[in-house]
Amino acid sequence: MGKMHLCAFLQHGIINHVPLMWAHPRDKVGYDFAKPQYWQDLARILERGRFDAMFLADVLAPYGVYKDSIETTVKYGVQFPVHDPMLVVPVAALATEKLGFGVTISTSFEQPYLVSRRLATLDHLTNGRIGWNVVTSYSPNEFKAMGHREMIPHDERYDKAEEFLDVCFRLWDSWEPDAVLKDRENGIFADPAKIRSIHHEGKYFRCSGPLPVMPSPQGRPVIWQAGSSERGRDVAAKYADSIFTIQPSARAMKAYADDLRSRAKRFGRNPDDLKILFGVQVIVGETEEAAKAKQRAIMEMIPFEAALTLLSGHIGFDFSRVDLSQPFAHLDVNGIQNYVNVYGNMQDKTLTIGEAARIHGISGGSPVVVGSPEQVADQLEYLFREGGGNGFNIRATYVPGCYEEFVEWVVPILQKRGLFRKEYGGNTLRENLLDD
Amino acid sequence: MGKMHLCAFLQHGIINHVPLMWAHPRDKVGYDFAKPQYWQDLARILERGRFDAMFLADVLAPYGVYKDSIETTVKYGVQFPVHDPMLVVPVAALATEKLGFGVTISTSFEQPYLVSRRLATLDHLTNGRIGWNVVTSYSPNEFKAMGHREMIPHDERYDKAEEFLDVCFRLWDSWEPDAVLKDRENGIFADPAKIRSIHHEGKYFRCSGPLPVMPSPQGRPVIWQAGSSERGRDVAAKYADSIFTIQPSARAMKAYADDLRSRAKRFGRNPDDLKILFGVQVIVGETEEAAKAKQRAIMEMIPFEAALTLLSGHIGFDFSRVDLSQPFAHLDVNGIQNYVNVYGNMQDKTLTIGEAARIHGISGGSPVVVGSPEQVADQLEYLFREGGGNGFNIRATYVPGCYEEFVEWVVPILQKRGLFRKEYGGNTLRENLLDD
Repeated sequence: MGKMHLCAFLQHGIINHVPLMWAHPRDKVGYDFAKPQYWQDLARILERGRFDAMFLADVLAPYGVYKDSIETTVKYGVQFPVHDPMLVVPVAALATEKLGFGVTISTSFEQPYLVSRRLATLDHLTNGRIGWNVVTSYSPNEFKAMGHREMIPHDERYDKAEEFLDVCFRLWDSWEPDAVLKDRENGIFADPAKIRSIHHEGKYFRCSGPLPVMPSPQGRPVIWQAGSSERGRDVAAKYADSIFTIQPSARAMKAYADDLRSRAKRFGRNPDDLKILFGVQVIVGETEEAAKAKQRAIMEMIPFEAALTLLSGHIGFDFSRVDLSQPFAHLDVNGIQNYVNVYGNMQDKTLTIGEAARIHGISGGSPVVVGSPEQVADQLEYLFREGGGNGFNIRATYVPGCYEEFVEWVVPILQKRGLFRKEYGGNTLRENLLDD
Repeated sequence: MGKMHLCAFLQHGIINHVPLMWAHPRDKVGYDFAKPQYWQDLARILERGRFDAMFLADVLAPYGVYKDSIETTVKYGVQFPVHDPMLVVPVAALATEKLGFGVTISTSFEQPYLVSRRLATLDHLTNGRIGWNVVTSYSPNEFKAMGHREMIPHDERYDKAEEFLDVCFRLWDSWEPDAVLKDRENGIFADPAKIRSIHHEGKYFRCSGPLPVMPSPQGRPVIWQAGSSERGRDVAAKYADSIFTIQPSARAMKAYADDLRSRAKRFGRNPDDLKILFGVQVIVGETEEAAKAKQRAIMEMIPFEAALTLLSGHIGFDFSRVDLSQPFAHLDVNGIQNYVNVYGNMQDKTLTIGEAARIHGISGGSPVVVGSPEQVADQLEYLFREGGGNGFNIRATYVPGCYEEFVEWVVPILQKRGLFRKEYGGNTLRENLLDD
């Protein structure tokens, strides 16, 4: 088993997944998130903690599922607004040397040519520290914002994603590594024979030409994918260098990891090349009691409607239309099975819909790891050893405080146990995340 | 007459418009342009010189007009590669406090929703220093790269640009300035009644929703437009805060400025609100002789085929197909009239096609201002007073050296003459470029 890998699961927005954290007395997101200094401070903390990467999720448009409206999304700032994540990467990169960056870009709305150019540009500007979280988008309001009358059906989104990735790969590979000559004496910049135009005519995209970017340090960015459906898992197993997924327990993690690795094998890949990261919500205190008090305080802060708004948005089902005192597990809604697996039973108790929503507000479907630094390290070690993955994407509460605590209190314990790196092994994200 | 405004006309690429400058002994572009430090150094120089903005042009794909191939474009690095310009803005902004940024984005290939989000995000990250150079794209290879079988016809590109801008304006205006409450006590982030979703169904775009970005310092970015055709001039006069155009002489500048101002008036605008910047190529030396020697050396460096590649790309006509010893003015090619006006006669001499191409290599259609610091200041003052514009977009030769020289030698003279600011008047680009 290799070392543990750690990312910070963030957004360039008013909250980082947990509603109302902008109002937490220790949160700086609500005040500074749109300014570069905030991102530089945060990046320095994560690099001090030897994190693999800052993982920037994205939500393109406000959820409008709860009460068929964006009202509560806007009112409570439930993952709204979210500014463009890509643009803070060069800023955070300037404050660091080894920390990587995962940036989310959907394959449902843009052309591969410009996206591949942006990512290659970022690979230069970060000196080889860029990764791409490839998503296909699931929120109806994102499709409406982008001019679609209807959402692209699920499996078709993945077909489109595959073609999108194929075009990007061909573009990134369109320059031979030694194409650039910079022969000043003869005035020759590059050897045209070593820069091959691609000519793609597919079902969803057409593209002609070479990449308009010099070969970048990593050549291709690290590819992250999620994928929970059958179709999504296959795409992830086929294309991803790393997978980020949310699974509620060590057992579910293990089942997911085994499944993805066997799929990777079917695609002719070495299953160990697939680095699987699981989402975990960490709440650490100096003592167990302090951590539990912190958790209670955070859960009490979250307005119930904000939690319902978030859950409705994630599931695509309007929870204002049901009796919240009913068991969550009895809900019979298309596509809800994954969430029922998470919230149907928890801590050996059948949760009501209302209880499930409250927990979703803080966990987003991930395990919530609460305790003293030693206890948190114990639980992470357990999830790491039993879950079959390669590490964790650590969700945020208040930022940057929650990462400062994690880096100061938990990272040294993981390092002492030999689970986590003390120094970066390489300079690029590819080297640090994938080579170990 | 207000003060003179100055921008630096740049690209995030291997050259800044003049071919082969990457090979000039004083050029750093060819070596460092893909790295953040280069952009920070350059931004500091421009801010020291009190420039309004770094103006980042863009070329999305290599020219393929000359010999119907990209071969010479690639070989000589003729505006190829060009990396994404938007991504260096946050980097350069971090090194400066008042310098503005003009970033080029075409309205022919993307959706207004994501573009308006990016620009608003940049307005936050730069603290109100972002401008958008709105272009419609003219190079066939850009359309091929982006999946179009054929170019969108000229006037239709402008129809699309108008609709694109309308949607962006409505999105930027979708939050009332006091919509954000951040009421921590009651957990209320924003007043939903003050964030209005737009519902646009147009000929080219559909878009529903509010802007997913908090109101930014400038609200709307500064809008730059070029526009030389009838249709293009109308769009510029209607929408632009500032116009960047290339005109070969004071007389042509004056005619252009008068025309644009009278069009602006027809659209119900105060014509003085339109800030018109003209492209100028400056070559300054400590003495007239030194400057002329420098100019000769630069022109001799440019491979003839590179100049022909650039001219062919700009005009959309393959100059490998004509006798280069013929007069340029006798060329009868659709859409070439603007260029014939520039290169047909120069310095009272009828230029051959070959001579015109060589001059295009260094001037790109702009006046070339060569001389000692006093002489350059004299010529700029002349073009400023007689040309009827509000300032200049200074083209580059070797970078950052040519701007260092300009800032050190020419700017103090312009300041002493009372033509150019000694200190920035405001903090935002809008304040500095438009309020004076």
